[in-house]
Amino acid sequence: MSSRSVIETSGKKVRTKNISRRVRKIVISPIKEMSILADTAAQESKTKIISFGQGIPYWDTPDNIKRGIVRALDKIEAAKYTLEPGITELRELVAKNIERSRRVPKVSKEEVMITVGCQEAVDCAIATVIDPGEEILLPEPAFASHIEQIIQFGGVPKFVPLREKNGWHLSLGECARRITKKTRAVLISNPSNPTGMVYSKSELTALSALARRKNLVIIADETYDFLTYGGAKHFSPASIPWARERTIVCGSFSKKYAMTGYRVGFAYAPEGILYHMLKVHDALAICAPAISQLAAIAALKGPQTSVKTAVRRLAENRKAICRELDALSDILTYEKPMGAYYILAKLKRPNTDSFRLVLKILREASVVVIPGGAFGPTGEGHIRFSFAGKPEEIKTGMRRFRAWAKKWKKENYAL
Amino acid sequence: MSSRSVIETSGKKVRTKNISRRVRKIVISPIKEMSILADTAAQESKTKIISFGQGIPYWDTPDNIKRGIVRALDKIEAAKYTLEPGITELRELVAKNIERSRRVPKVSKEEVMITVGCQEAVDCAIATVIDPGEEILLPEPAFASHIEQIIQFGGVPKFVPLREKNGWHLSLGECARRITKKTRAVLISNPSNPTGMVYSKSELTALSALARRKNLVIIADETYDFLTYGGAKHFSPASIPWARERTIVCGSFSKKYAMTGYRVGFAYAPEGILYHMLKVHDALAICAPAISQLAAIAALKGPQTSVKTAVRRLAENRKAICRELDALSDILTYEKPMGAYYILAKLKRPNTDSFRLVLKILREASVVVIPGGAFGPTGEGHIRFSFAGKPEEIKTGMRRFRAWAKKWKKENYAL
Repeated sequence: MSSRSVIETSGKKVRTKNISRRVRKIVISPIKEMSILADTAAQESKTKIISFGQGIPYWDTPDNIKRGIVRALDKIEAAKYTLEPGITELRELVAKNIERSRRVPKVSKEEVMITVGCQEAVDCAIATVIDPGEEILLPEPAFASHIEQIIQFGGVPKFVPLREKNGWHLSLGECARRITKKTRAVLISNPSNPTGMVYSKSELTALSALARRKNLVIIADETYDFLTYGGAKHFSPASIPWARERTIVCGSFSKKYAMTGYRVGFAYAPEGILYHMLKVHDALAICAPAISQLAAIAALKGPQTSVKTAVRRLAENRKAICRELDALSDILTYEKPMGAYYILAKLKRPNTDSFRLVLKILREASVVVIPGGAFGPTGEGHIRFSFAGKPEEIKTGMRRFRAWAKKWKKENYAL
Repeated sequence: MSSRSVIETSGKKVRTKNISRRVRKIVISPIKEMSILADTAAQESKTKIISFGQGIPYWDTPDNIKRGIVRALDKIEAAKYTLEPGITELRELVAKNIERSRRVPKVSKEEVMITVGCQEAVDCAIATVIDPGEEILLPEPAFASHIEQIIQFGGVPKFVPLREKNGWHLSLGECARRITKKTRAVLISNPSNPTGMVYSKSELTALSALARRKNLVIIADETYDFLTYGGAKHFSPASIPWARERTIVCGSFSKKYAMTGYRVGFAYAPEGILYHMLKVHDALAICAPAISQLAAIAALKGPQTSVKTAVRRLAENRKAICRELDALSDILTYEKPMGAYYILAKLKRPNTDSFRLVLKILREASVVVIPGGAFGPTGEGHIRFSFAGKPEEIKTGMRRFRAWAKKWKKENYAL
């Protein structure tokens, strides 16, 4: 599967001696490969690279959180391992937060563990529900890492193509048809990275009913739960009383509080499932970083104005980038994102290898975009734009991209 | 394998519906189970629990490191994902540090990645070298988590019993006899947690030669490389020129700089192996916490006096606890630790179930020790003491333990 790697597409030779088949099959998520390649390119060129790549909010962590960190440094607590499920106060705050934000009644701290970002929460969920050779339904285009995470634990991502023409929504029939005796779970990203789609309540209720009928666990990556546009509403399957017993919610502080570097997130699951997830968490990380847990406490206890500002900034960015992309309708089309901060744009030129294309764009336009093929087969022929960057960089970057696109068209879309 | 869990030994019922066989087979490391049980016991009782359990240095992170964190908060770098292999400056500093501390010539930053503690470095190594069903030689008593980490990735820990009478050293013959067609690596903890044994240069040279002959990877967990006593010297297989190409060193900032809560460590491996380990790291954590990486930079660039103080404090603790244990020779014997800060003491009473025993000790003496059975079959009939706690707590704790031991003897060692 080396074709899923941008770095290997660029010609890198790879050692195979002493390397497991498992790891030969996975890739560094092309989202991060592009960051690495951009870093190398930046060292070699004089032009500043502009990134529509990795999804990182452009502003700094709010001051009240930083002050919380400085206060925490005075206590020895910051230096030491925390209890393995997380600091008790933080687990309680997250439980309360889930009650409010997801409308789930009576969440106990015993159903919450604090993780090394949402990423590790998803790992714990996957390892807990599948054995090697078993399958997880993965509506795709999917978050690139979800594919690697499933394979890494010996599982098989069972792709369910989303319907681009229908705003990237799910077809329940497509889902049901792919269930086999080996299917153990369905893993969704909601709001979706990379499509910006927000699952509707009825869509998730139907999916949950299917999961119940087929005894599947629902793993919901809800990193972007706070971030929807134009009246779209986030809905969590955990809020369906009869679905709660089979739902694992994975959440994050990274995007909501501009804390991507802190690596702190959470998992919320029935106690009986969480008990097993904790074992995986222990073997992966021992505990989430104490200092980041203390920062998360400050984030949840402090004023939430920074979250409103974040949503407003991203809504403005969305408007700006959509305007730019509308002007590029000769080379691409796209579905308007209803949540998160990504757009998966379809290239009009058929059969364009997205991995080779993004290398060309980086080289020629000093702009980072992510190859759609990284998100699953339905993503091929697309490129993903993150719009969490600075407004002025979005402007400059899109100007470069437009100029490059014109040239590319003149070259008759050569790669 | 529920007998490896203290919590399950204490009678907890566990959900199995929707839970993978893989995860049903692993446990939360009993080291952390004891922390959880102690926390619950502390809430229920009025006596302060004294812990000889989880290995956490008792002092706070040095001031120069904390000042480094406060300075780092001013830069937006602390808020954001770092490049996935780690901050370049830190990788360079670690490379230099490996050259000096392990006498490995010409280490490049391309051979170093920064991880979520040593724990995650070991996970990345394991996933990279084995496929489900394959084996890793594990000299035991081994660090408890190493057992779970191997099983979690579908592997089989192939136990090689260490020789207690020989200061817990390795028998190369025992090692060689356990190699099969499915063996891919050997995983050592050096200095050893839980035995305090320090592998000698000749011992590791012979082991490395065996690894070369059988095409095995050597994974060396060197968390305690800085911490040896009485003239013992730490030696790394990475410093053997012909072994370097098959050696993965996993290291830590946790114990050396009193930073266990920060979750920052590193892996050092040949570039061709590290390339694959990075894929696992990406899927597990994206990157190590930025703030902790910045703290680690401050640790490596700052004065190293705190490390000398750490070694002195722990050498004093070692003397004190050995004196106490010497006075308990009617119920236990032990090998003097030459490195790390653990003692694995052998109970004189044969066939004592260490899991039930530690629950009894916690209940009756309000003292935490770790069941030897957590470290592998050869560890059964032993209990582990960490001596990284405060000197006055070691004193009080051992007083309680002595009183309890007397009573236990009177009860004719009932469980």
